[in-house]
Amino acid sequence: MAQSSTEAASAYEQLLTKYKRIANVENAGGILSWDQQVMMPDEGTPARSQQMSALSALGHELLTDDEFGELLEAAEADDPTDEQADVLRELRRDYERAVRVPNDLVEKISAASSEAIPAWKQAKAEDDFEEFAPHLEKHVELKRKYAEHIDPDRDPYEVLFEEYEPCLPLEQAEEILAEVREVLVSMIEDIRESDTELAVDAFEGEFAADEQEALARDALSTLGYPWDRGRLDTAPHPFSSGTQFDARVTTRYDESDPLGSLFSTIHEFGHALYTLGLPDEHYATPLGEDRDLSVHESQSRLWENHVGRSRAFWKHFLPTFTEHFSAVDASVEEAYEAANQVYEDNLIRVEADELTYHLHIVIRFELERALVSGDLAVEDVPEAWNDKYEEYLGIRPETDAEGCLQDIHWAYGNFGYFPTYSLGSIMAAQLFDAAAADIDGLDEKLSDGEFGELRTWLRENVHQHGRRYETNDLVKRATGDDFAADAFLDYVESKYGELYDL
Amino acid sequence: MAQSSTEAASAYEQLLTKYKRIANVENAGGILSWDQQVMMPDEGTPARSQQMSALSALGHELLTDDEFGELLEAAEADDPTDEQADVLRELRRDYERAVRVPNDLVEKISAASSEAIPAWKQAKAEDDFEEFAPHLEKHVELKRKYAEHIDPDRDPYEVLFEEYEPCLPLEQAEEILAEVREVLVSMIEDIRESDTELAVDAFEGEFAADEQEALARDALSTLGYPWDRGRLDTAPHPFSSGTQFDARVTTRYDESDPLGSLFSTIHEFGHALYTLGLPDEHYATPLGEDRDLSVHESQSRLWENHVGRSRAFWKHFLPTFTEHFSAVDASVEEAYEAANQVYEDNLIRVEADELTYHLHIVIRFELERALVSGDLAVEDVPEAWNDKYEEYLGIRPETDAEGCLQDIHWAYGNFGYFPTYSLGSIMAAQLFDAAAADIDGLDEKLSDGEFGELRTWLRENVHQHGRRYETNDLVKRATGDDFAADAFLDYVESKYGELYDL
Repeated sequence: MAQSSTEAASAYEQLLTKYKRIANVENAGGILSWDQQVMMPDEGTPARSQQMSALSALGHELLTDDEFGELLEAAEADDPTDEQADVLRELRRDYERAVRVPNDLVEKISAASSEAIPAWKQAKAEDDFEEFAPHLEKHVELKRKYAEHIDPDRDPYEVLFEEYEPCLPLEQAEEILAEVREVLVSMIEDIRESDTELAVDAFEGEFAADEQEALARDALSTLGYPWDRGRLDTAPHPFSSGTQFDARVTTRYDESDPLGSLFSTIHEFGHALYTLGLPDEHYATPLGEDRDLSVHESQSRLWENHVGRSRAFWKHFLPTFTEHFSAVDASVEEAYEAANQVYEDNLIRVEADELTYHLHIVIRFELERALVSGDLAVEDVPEAWNDKYEEYLGIRPETDAEGCLQDIHWAYGNFGYFPTYSLGSIMAAQLFDAAAADIDGLDEKLSDGEFGELRTWLRENVHQHGRRYETNDLVKRATGDDFAADAFLDYVESKYGELYDL
Repeated sequence: MAQSSTEAASAYEQLLTKYKRIANVENAGGILSWDQQVMMPDEGTPARSQQMSALSALGHELLTDDEFGELLEAAEADDPTDEQADVLRELRRDYERAVRVPNDLVEKISAASSEAIPAWKQAKAEDDFEEFAPHLEKHVELKRKYAEHIDPDRDPYEVLFEEYEPCLPLEQAEEILAEVREVLVSMIEDIRESDTELAVDAFEGEFAADEQEALARDALSTLGYPWDRGRLDTAPHPFSSGTQFDARVTTRYDESDPLGSLFSTIHEFGHALYTLGLPDEHYATPLGEDRDLSVHESQSRLWENHVGRSRAFWKHFLPTFTEHFSAVDASVEEAYEAANQVYEDNLIRVEADELTYHLHIVIRFELERALVSGDLAVEDVPEAWNDKYEEYLGIRPETDAEGCLQDIHWAYGNFGYFPTYSLGSIMAAQLFDAAAADIDGLDEKLSDGEFGELRTWLRENVHQHGRRYETNDLVKRATGDDFAADAFLDYVESKYGELYDL
């Protein structure tokens, strides 16, 4: 494979050129994936599956190429600057992880995902777990092999978790989650026993999807989404994807739950804003790529929960809401209560409130660990799922569509991904506290619809760094403290203590 | 670059596996290109340009890899079956052409296109040729180099023409076009002098774009477009792209010209139907890929002109049209006349009738030959363009937006592409004659809205063969005769002779 390169280019420059190609192939795969979920006609799967598999394998081969390893070693030995050292640390980690996994396994996982996604869609639509089961089985088997190639001596789940959180130890994550879980279980019990009923009636009824879409567009514009670098579309499982030049948002509309759709849109806005805040000049290099999933989720949860579910936001946004839905007759306080109701009977993670949400996550975390370790057979997932819901949340799904088939993640073979959602929420509270300390009168500014200073604070303290700092380092630089659960626990105890008179 | 392959796989099988990867990378690039033209936000260009450039270079490198050449040689020597020999002929041609062009030139052309396309859009919108000129200059320079690498001793335009028509000699193409040009110039003169005025008033007025879109969807459904393998969107320059699993159509709506938009949609339907007729089981191999551009265009023109502009089609479709636009009060004969009016004052190729159309093409053909040979400087293109329009069509563009900036092709650096449009129209007439001879009462069937037999005939005689036969061979097998202008000339003389009382 011939490679044109200037004779004078340093090992570091040559390495970066090679990495840019890899990143561009991955970003192309991202467009194909977006298209598959948003635009592709039903019968397109066989070709798309092969296309994505080819790109995935090529990216892997380019990264694990001998020349890449040699250039990496040469660049590391070539007295790198601090910035270069940060980049090399990231490339070394990517390389080490990739080089241990054979190409054909990567290709198999990609092909399995492309087949599993439409099967999952159908299984969910028809409430037929058996349609999806062989695909899940296949993924568990492939991902066990994957972890074994990377490190045969460690817990395969830990290895898989590092796919999403390479620089946050699973042990630290577990401690944080354990602390949060203990508090939440008790708080949710207290809320169950509380007589307080929040005002939610104003947001009940039928809310036309096309009007909700217009509302979602207004919300995105209000928060400062740059439409010349993005778009809004619908997808069965909302996501955002792209680059700093083109970061797209998807959402879905439930005609009986306009707030759920709105917060889902704001959530994805937070993800997209992070991506858009990565520096243009470092596109397709580690300094222009997002840090790991918990940091990404901290950005979506910050906008969803700390902005979208705040009194301040509703002071500003309620008139826009009622422009679209004039039948809604609510005060700001009622909107705030409706936005923060704890749904004791809700089975669906993406429709959960910010307290019960983390128990949804803990259930998935426990089940996928058991799946990967072999303690849980695929065929037993539906019952195990339903049992856990009964145990932790006091509710039992009646169908698998509203049970273990609700999320797309396992259809991608993503095990170890779910805990990053809760970690992100916890990090969001810590970051928002720091932003509020730095920005004079942040609450008033949000009430006035001035979101620019918050966007700037996030860009300067989080977005613009790309992968320059590791997770704990990034949080410490932004907030002055280690990543911990304290700010989140203070936040929920204060907020829900007041709301539910606990 | 490690490559997993079964030990027992023959050279032919290994070669085909390698080729499939190349085809999948190219098809992924096709999705990125579709997205760029249909979905991508304005500021997405810098990243998209790099992504497409990376895929294009990778495809080129995979094809020109030493191992590909060695496997090709081994497969050719390994007593191939007839089918294998057809595939190997195509792979050999692709390989020889690609191996002569250096990777960095391929990458430069791809990057130049990604930059030129938005510049062309802006230049067209602002009627500012100078905005586009440096991009055109760059393309001419790069494509001359490209041709020189392939064969420094031949006319570079001939070499570039073979990019689109590798198995139809330019000499044969020129003879056919010369014959057609001679007849058309004389016919158009006669029509200019004729007193006959066709009935067109019924289709004048304002036709809302969203209703036109609904009409376009009905037209596609009527003709048999399978929506589970395609979609309809809008694009500034209509095109279709995809694979047999997912072949998409784009169109645009001119609120003063509903027939123009409708025929553009039907045209793209013809392209998509060809792609959809390629055999599923040969996806990503030459037997599952389309033959060259003239054959592709024969399919679009057959549906646009021989079906869409026929009395038979309007007998069936006029009621659907008036369902959408009830203000239109026209007889079938009036619709037929409106659909076939010769627009003596039209400056826009894609809005031209089927007679003047070919003079639009001849102008581009002559100008791009002069550009490539160096006889025409880029800065002189607008004036040369306008002079030719005055000379051949008796009309002079007042702006470059309706002159030399109207087409996207040169923004892709596509020189040698335009003549394939006329060649396709000419081939369409020959194929339609053969279909009409084979299908009992084809005209009545079309009048009854029965398009299935025509679709089947085209699939059996053209689509299903992929690249198995070379162009002349394919036409001879389908029609019994060599590819020639006779059927087309008979068709236009008979049709327009009747319409204009010549």
